[in-house]
Amino acid sequence: MSKQILVLPGDGIGPEIMAEAVKVLQLANDKYSLGFELSFDELGGAAVDKYGVPLADETLARARAADAILLGAVGGPKWDKIDPAIRPERGLLKIRSQLGLFANLRPAILYPQLADASSLKPEVVAGLDILIVRELTGGIYFGQPRESKVLENGERMAYDTLPYSESEIRRIAQIGFDMARVRGKKLCSVDKANVLASSQLWRAVVEEVAKGYPDVELSHMYVDNAAMQLVRAPKQFDVMVTDNMFGDILSDEASMLTGSIGMLPSASLDANNKGMYEPCHGSAPDIAGQGIANPLATILSVSMMLRYSFNQAAAADAIELAVSKVLDQGLRTGDIFSAGMTKVGTAGMGDAVVEAL
Amino acid sequence: MSKQILVLPGDGIGPEIMAEAVKVLQLANDKYSLGFELSFDELGGAAVDKYGVPLADETLARARAADAILLGAVGGPKWDKIDPAIRPERGLLKIRSQLGLFANLRPAILYPQLADASSLKPEVVAGLDILIVRELTGGIYFGQPRESKVLENGERMAYDTLPYSESEIRRIAQIGFDMARVRGKKLCSVDKANVLASSQLWRAVVEEVAKGYPDVELSHMYVDNAAMQLVRAPKQFDVMVTDNMFGDILSDEASMLTGSIGMLPSASLDANNKGMYEPCHGSAPDIAGQGIANPLATILSVSMMLRYSFNQAAAADAIELAVSKVLDQGLRTGDIFSAGMTKVGTAGMGDAVVEAL
Ligand SMILES: CC(C)[C@H](C(=O)O)[C@@H](O)C(=O)O
Ligand SMILES: CC(C)[C@H](C(=O)O)[C@@H](O)C(=O)O
Repeated sequence: MSKQILVLPGDGIGPEIMAEAVKVLQLANDKYSLGFELSFDELGGAAVDKYGVPLADETLARARAADAILLGAVGGPKWDKIDPAIRPERGLLKIRSQLGLFANLRPAILYPQLADASSLKPEVVAGLDILIVRELTGGIYFGQPRESKVLENGERMAYDTLPYSESEIRRIAQIGFDMARVRGKKLCSVDKANVLASSQLWRAVVEEVAKGYPDVELSHMYVDNAAMQLVRAPKQFDVMVTDNMFGDILSDEASMLTGSIGMLPSASLDANNKGMYEPCHGSAPDIAGQGIANPLATILSVSMMLRYSFNQAAAADAIELAVSKVLDQGLRTGDIFSAGMTKVGTAGMGDAVVEAL
Repeated sequence: MSKQILVLPGDGIGPEIMAEAVKVLQLANDKYSLGFELSFDELGGAAVDKYGVPLADETLARARAADAILLGAVGGPKWDKIDPAIRPERGLLKIRSQLGLFANLRPAILYPQLADASSLKPEVVAGLDILIVRELTGGIYFGQPRESKVLENGERMAYDTLPYSESEIRRIAQIGFDMARVRGKKLCSVDKANVLASSQLWRAVVEEVAKGYPDVELSHMYVDNAAMQLVRAPKQFDVMVTDNMFGDILSDEASMLTGSIGMLPSASLDANNKGMYEPCHGSAPDIAGQGIANPLATILSVSMMLRYSFNQAAAADAIELAVSKVLDQGLRTGDIFSAGMTKVGTAGMGDAVVEAL
């Protein structure tokens, strides 16, 4: 039976890096007889331009019908001044929420070939391999009520709401424990339970879920301390699980520890492991259209898709190995370039991975 | 006329490091005829033990009457299991809020003598000097309503509220601009305006305040990007201004970039520059009572107090110079020790600063 994959290249460098990822995906499709059928649509600014909204109903329907979604990146200065209700990011938030993609997996891995790229000392980050599990459809990102208003004294004020229910916390905690179980068996849950009511519930529910995972070592850390510890000694972490807002901040911080955010993929999964896969980096409008962006994070997102949504470990491993090979060959896009290496463009890098595969 | 200083040693290493800071303060008092009168009380766990609450009414009254407050650190495992309503941190939050200490200044400075202590590469952090201005009495820390409840379906849920009013944003933005004006003239305002209603108001009000500071270069950054940029290239920042929660996270991250959080003081000021001064680090219960904690952050908090609340720049400079001297002499407490240096304890370090002063 064929599997439907919806490809959303998005904005900025999105289309360029996606073209390379699609090459790799199509080769894997043939080689491993995966039976994938690809269709293409728009999200973000490109969707605003085409449909007038950052996520059109028909695109959402296609995304619902698909077995997995591959996303480039969204946003750019072109849409910075438009009505906030239809900014590119709203499309991203809506597709996450509408498809129930509550589990965001963001690995922060240091590739040995790129050890120098980190701003941290080599001994602090060598071998770094953290997985951040971020809750993606709840919390302050979607909490109601939220409002901007004028008070009786004429002052403006605005507020947001940070809600979490037991079931929202339980399901993301389970993902955290499941991931830890097949990795280093250590889970660190990050919250601000010394201040927030939602964090107190978070911590209590995580403790309850822990009873089902006696083989996983659970710790709790306040978010401010976690932000420090990631800088001080990041290798103390295996899997971290946290809420939507804290996960946004900490996963970006963690990814930057590697110095090569152009290498990092991510997955956003629903309860049935249907997922949307995208690079951790943004749409980099400053270098869009120049053919110099690094396609590897998107290519590695294809690998994550094969692994998590389609259980195709062999094909996923092969793509990761191919990426490792081109790095060994010394090929580098500008963002990860260092002296003595061979500089290639987006297509050059994509072709090299295809070749290696 | 005499000035009243309330000293709150707090918990853990608090009393030890405060003893040294008080030595330095008393010497400065004599030497510069500052006319300070010191009184002592408890906050946090020590106050729970003495008064049954982490901030007693009489302590609060004394704090109100004082011209400045010097705080050690609060919290520890001894009070981890008590009623959340009287946990040590509640005392800290209450004194901040009750005294209207809305402006939290947290410098992240790399001392050249301690350059090696950072987990970042020397070239990334050499000369680092960032000031984080954190809003301290608003936002999600104090927002109402906040609640933990059981839904009709039997599920527990909890929520917090993140409110900001125009006037709260305006006054902290002004502090940010004022600070930038006397430093590198660059202010970066950090928010999450692509998601939060409160951040959209934040950004709008900061833009308005900027009109009064044409000499300061203002930029805006999303909090996730700020967390990354602090790791990637921290020296791009001069002053950062942000809300209570983001400031909590980013100031801890920034302080850890220096590798020597035992060196960093902080100030929390009200509208009249009355302030509470404390080290950035916590109460370190694991090393409490051993006489090995680093008193320099608390000593430098005394210097900040002289500078911000009492306009005694000469005395403040002298203390900072004395600290620099003892570092030049190679004296180090355990947390900042490196090969070839002379290890000293808390009192040894305090005495050396007194000597140098
Ligand atoms: C674009 C933005 C809304 C989004 C988020 O905050 O979730 C992005 O930062 C991310 O982490 O995917
Ligand atoms: C102890 C805690 C409540 C406090 C805060 O979050 O403000 C601390 O982390 C700080 O930054 O001073």
